[in-house]
Amino acid sequence: MAKEAVVLLSGGLDSSTVLPYALEKGYNVHALSFDYGQNHKFELVAARRIAEANHINKHTIMTIDLRSFGGSALTADIEVPKDKSGKVGSAGIPITYVPARNTIFLSFALGLAEVSGALDIFIGVNAQDYSGYPDCRPEFITAFEKLANLATRVGVEGGIFTIHTPLMELTKAEIVKLGISLGVDYSLTHTCYDPLGNGDPCGSCDACNLRRRGFQEAGFPDPLNYGDR
Amino acid sequence: MAKEAVVLLSGGLDSSTVLPYALEKGYNVHALSFDYGQNHKFELVAARRIAEANHINKHTIMTIDLRSFGGSALTADIEVPKDKSGKVGSAGIPITYVPARNTIFLSFALGLAEVSGALDIFIGVNAQDYSGYPDCRPEFITAFEKLANLATRVGVEGGIFTIHTPLMELTKAEIVKLGISLGVDYSLTHTCYDPLGNGDPCGSCDACNLRRRGFQEAGFPDPLNYGDR
Repeated sequence: MAKEAVVLLSGGLDSSTVLPYALEKGYNVHALSFDYGQNHKFELVAARRIAEANHINKHTIMTIDLRSFGGSALTADIEVPKDKSGKVGSAGIPITYVPARNTIFLSFALGLAEVSGALDIFIGVNAQDYSGYPDCRPEFITAFEKLANLATRVGVEGGIFTIHTPLMELTKAEIVKLGISLGVDYSLTHTCYDPLGNGDPCGSCDACNLRRRGFQEAGFPDPLNYGDR
Repeated sequence: MAKEAVVLLSGGLDSSTVLPYALEKGYNVHALSFDYGQNHKFELVAARRIAEANHINKHTIMTIDLRSFGGSALTADIEVPKDKSGKVGSAGIPITYVPARNTIFLSFALGLAEVSGALDIFIGVNAQDYSGYPDCRPEFITAFEKLANLATRVGVEGGIFTIHTPLMELTKAEIVKLGISLGVDYSLTHTCYDPLGNGDPCGSCDACNLRRRGFQEAGFPDPLNYGDR
């Protein structure tokens, strides 16, 4: 019988690559997405499309109100910076950082994993191009893995949770190449922090910049229509 | 200026003792409660009463759907056991355990703390009478504290989050005594896992048993009306 896994799926380039990666490793995947009060719901549409394209029949969309916390350009009325102008604080973390977001997402993934009999959780974080988010670093993932095994019945009973981060050490170009080899249809994904009214990407926020450079370096055309071309 | 703190407030005996404890330590408290799909909403009523009684003007009730995960007598149609019959699995963890609940609660508290400028989070977990929940143990709290400092902008910039667990080493009787000394009105609190239709406690679930024994040992009358007396 296939082993169960929970895959965090935002509908972006990274998680849309991780999902078929987990399937290819033989896991029976339960996808988990969040309607967390993000300004742009296009990513949830993308998450649904990606789940469908991968024939995932267990896809939970959890609604949580991170908007009530504020403090981020992704969940509040703060302008998304263009061209890397939006670093804040001494550590240079972008204004698009959402406080404790990956901690919250992984906590729900852990709860879902425990009730689903899954010991494996996949998340598409990435240290190379991680844009300065603290909760995308390897040491954060290691600390969460340790927490997971202390936090749960399964952990107490001797089960060991693993947080899989297959993209951690890859460049965006390498992620694109991996996804192409797995057959990912990147026209279904959504990356932009500040999309146009029709959902097309702006082409100039940090997320668009990283993605476009990734496709360019990988030598593949990006199938999205950018607003600036 | 008073330091900011986030206090997790369920409306039960423990968190209702922790809240005035944090106030007495001089913190400016932001209370955080969860409508997490628990079968009984009486505890949210209690949380609101306790916040009001303590003149808390920042009280966030976050709605999250742990019910969609199931797997617990507190969030699914599983009977709440009476008289300690409900331990499951080799580690004897109660069926009232909600998968990853405290991990999820603390993750939200961390996000709220970060946007509120708070470095201090209070939670009323307790190892003496912890009923076998893995996410009430000191080693779990220590692991979360470590995670918190890796997960956040504040942590990267050198801030240090502290998870305060003032009840960790206290017996239920000692908690009652502490609360009485802090002026807690325990008639406002809600403890029972399986209340009667009017909200009165059943008197015989694990939570009622622990509470009643605590008051008895502390030598104070429990102001609640139990269904069995």
